[in-house]
Amino acid sequence: MTEPLGPELTSIRSPRVKAARQLSKRALRLRARSFLAEGPQAVAEALACDGVVSQVYVTAAAHGRFGRLIDQATQQGAAVQAVSGDVMAELAQTITPQGVLAVCRFVDVPLARVAVAASRLVVILANVRDPGNAGTVLRTADAAGADGVIFSDASVDPYNSKCVRATAGSIFHLPVVVGTPVAATVAALREAGMRVLAADGRAGQSLDEAGPRGLLSGPTAWLFGNEAWGLPADVLALADEAVAVPIYGQAESLNLAAAAAVCLYASARAQRGQ
Amino acid sequence: MTEPLGPELTSIRSPRVKAARQLSKRALRLRARSFLAEGPQAVAEALACDGVVSQVYVTAAAHGRFGRLIDQATQQGAAVQAVSGDVMAELAQTITPQGVLAVCRFVDVPLARVAVAASRLVVILANVRDPGNAGTVLRTADAAGADGVIFSDASVDPYNSKCVRATAGSIFHLPVVVGTPVAATVAALREAGMRVLAADGRAGQSLDEAGPRGLLSGPTAWLFGNEAWGLPADVLALADEAVAVPIYGQAESLNLAAAAAVCLYASARAQRGQ
Repeated sequence: MTEPLGPELTSIRSPRVKAARQLSKRALRLRARSFLAEGPQAVAEALACDGVVSQVYVTAAAHGRFGRLIDQATQQGAAVQAVSGDVMAELAQTITPQGVLAVCRFVDVPLARVAVAASRLVVILANVRDPGNAGTVLRTADAAGADGVIFSDASVDPYNSKCVRATAGSIFHLPVVVGTPVAATVAALREAGMRVLAADGRAGQSLDEAGPRGLLSGPTAWLFGNEAWGLPADVLALADEAVAVPIYGQAESLNLAAAAAVCLYASARAQRGQ
Repeated sequence: MTEPLGPELTSIRSPRVKAARQLSKRALRLRARSFLAEGPQAVAEALACDGVVSQVYVTAAAHGRFGRLIDQATQQGAAVQAVSGDVMAELAQTITPQGVLAVCRFVDVPLARVAVAASRLVVILANVRDPGNAGTVLRTADAAGADGVIFSDASVDPYNSKCVRATAGSIFHLPVVVGTPVAATVAALREAGMRVLAADGRAGQSLDEAGPRGLLSGPTAWLFGNEAWGLPADVLALADEAVAVPIYGQAESLNLAAAAAVCLYASARAQRGQ
C-alpha cells in the first residue's frame, strides 16, 4: 500500500523549489554537495545506493505509477514532496519530464579508493568537455566492468544533469573520482600496479598490435582526451604507451565515446582471456 | 592565388539565403534533393566527392583562412557566394559557425549498390531516431571499414544537419542508403551472401560466444534498433541470429553508438583474422 503524499507544492517560487532548481548550476551543486537525478530509472538506481537520496519530488500522476519507488525513498528517510506539473517542469532539465526526480548527495570517492591493487580496469578522462560524451563513457565503462572512472583536470562535472542522464544510472554503479590532476592520477594508478595506456589516434601502434603483445591483459588505466584535440603532448608523455583504435576505412578518427567503447571492450576481452 | 569573391550578400531576406536556409527542413531537402554541410572539414570532404557541392557560402574571414577550399569549389563549378557574418549565422545550425558551408546534392545510393557479393560489413539502422546517434554510427562504420550504412524504415534522415555533423565527413566516404523497408533490406543483403546479425541486449548469445563460433568472420550485416526500445520482435525475427554485447558490470545496456562500435570492431577484427 503506497503512502499518501502531503500537500502538493504548486509555486515555482517556493524556497524548496528554488533550492533544488539551483542544483542545475555547478557552483551551487558544489556548495550543497548535491545533484539532481531525473526520471524513474535514475531515481531507482540512486535509491539502490543507501543514503544517497535526500529528497524526492514527484507529481501526482507519477506517484500513481512509481509508488514503490516513493515508498522506498520514504523508508530511507528521504523527504518526499508532491509537486504540480508546473513545478516539475521548472525542476527538470528534460523537455518531457517523467514526473519524478531526486536530490542526491555527491557519490564521488577519493582517488585512493580506485588506485588499489584490486583495480583491473580504470578510465581517466582528461579535459573531456562534453557532458553527453563523458556520461556515455561512464556508462560504457560500467558495462565493460571497469573499477572506476576519474574525471580529472578540467573535465566536465559528472553531476551536470546532461552527464547524469547519459550515464543511464551508471554514475551510481561504480566509483567516480572528481577533479584530481591528471599527473597525480596517473602516478597513483601506476603505483597501484596498472599500466597506463593513452588512447591516441596518432599512436604508432594500434589495438590490433597491442593485443598480441599482451599489453591489454594486465591491470590497465585508459587515458582519454578532449573530443576535439585529443591528448596534449605533456599528458601523452605521462602514459606508459599510446595505442590507436585502428581505422580500416576513410574516417579521420572516431568519436570519443565510440573509441572508448572499442578500447574498454578490447581490455575487458583480453583480461578475460578471450 | 585565391580568387577574389563577388559582392557580399548581407540580407538574410535574400531569396538565395532563404532557399539555403530551408534545407534545415526535411521536406524541403527532399524537394531540392540537397542538404547543408557546415564547416571546413565537412566542406572539404564534400569537395572530395566530385559533383556533390553545388553552392558554397563563405564569410570574408573564412575566405582568408580557407581560400584553397574556395578555389577547389570554383574549379568544380560550384557557385561561391560571399556572405556577411549575420547571413552565415542565419544559415548555420551551429552556435559558433566556422564561416563556410556548402549546399550538397544528395549522396545516397540504391540498395542494390550495397547488396552485392563484394560487401563484407554493412550496417542497417531500424528506427534509429536520434540524429547524433545515427551520425556517430555512420562515422564508426566508416572507421571500421564498412561497405555501407542503410537508414531503413523510420530512421532519422541522414541529411539532418545534426546527423551530418556527427558523421564528421563520413557521410561522404561510404555508400548510404535511405528509406528502404527493413524486411526488403535484410532479404537483399542475405541474397548477396551476408549473415544478418541483430544487436540485441537480451540475446541468448554474446559477442564472446559468437566470435569463437565463427559467426563474425564472414560477410555480415549488423542490424541496430531504436535507442530506447531496441529491435521489436518482428524485426528480430528477420535476422539470422541475435547477438548481445556482453555486460560485465552493472549497466543495464549500452548506448546505441557504443554498442555499434563494439559490434562493428568485433566484426572487422574477426574478418581480418585477428
